[in-house]
Amino acid sequence: MNSMLDPNYIAGFVDGEGCFSVTVTKRNKRIPEVRLLFEIELEDSDEKILHRIAKRLDCGRIYRVTYRKYPHWSSHFKLKVGNFKDIDEKVIPFFKRHPLQAKKKFQFERFCRVADLIREKRHLTVEGVEEILRIRKFT
Amino acid sequence: MNSMLDPNYIAGFVDGEGCFSVTVTKRNKRIPEVRLLFEIELEDSDEKILHRIAKRLDCGRIYRVTYRKYPHWSSHFKLKVGNFKDIDEKVIPFFKRHPLQAKKKFQFERFCRVADLIREKRHLTVEGVEEILRIRKFT
Repeated sequence: MNSMLDPNYIAGFVDGEGCFSVTVTKRNKRIPEVRLLFEIELEDSDEKILHRIAKRLDCGRIYRVTYRKYPHWSSHFKLKVGNFKDIDEKVIPFFKRHPLQAKKKFQFERFCRVADLIREKRHLTVEGVEEILRIRKFT
Repeated sequence: MNSMLDPNYIAGFVDGEGCFSVTVTKRNKRIPEVRLLFEIELEDSDEKILHRIAKRLDCGRIYRVTYRKYPHWSSHFKLKVGNFKDIDEKVIPFFKRHPLQAKKKFQFERFCRVADLIREKRHLTVEGVEEILRIRKFT
């Protein structure tokens, strides 16, 4: 039961439950900070599958999430990959080899376009960030 | 892009988005009616993946679902298999060959136990229905 997950299983699971996001944070600097984040958030009872997915992707950390505003909610677990090197060298190649098939496919395509810009350091320029914001708008 | 879906992809997708349910409906008869239902419900923009899953499973109908109570919600699409023969000969063998790995695995195991009872016509007896209700309680 705890053998390595089939990569196509992971593609299917992530198409339903995963999230590829682009965050743009204004700090007290001229250029906002751009980050990519791959996440899967699940209810408490499903923590184990997150560990198995992290193992297969060979990256990511697992966190327990509690919602202070909604203490009656059961706690959730989140698999999070925020490190650009891991995203670029592990997450993106994985989902290029084992393609998403549903709505997340378009989210992932935009995610990859932003990763291309980050790889070229264009997110450190005003024009690059503007382009990233345009790409993100259609997420 | 519209090639046949990999069965492990479907297992992953269903582990996140699918539902295996047992309904027990009291009518004006001594024995309540027991039915099995396999469903996937998704937002409007994801209709296509449901057709591809139905094609791979070789059963199921796709419905548009609108919520009268919540007219501002976008409409949803549902893949539904309620026919026992299809469940018994197509859905159950499919997920036995390509096992679920997360929470839905337990839901599916109970679903299979009820299917065994229906196959033996035990759902047409008071004792059988009581057993089904006990199995369902832990869903």
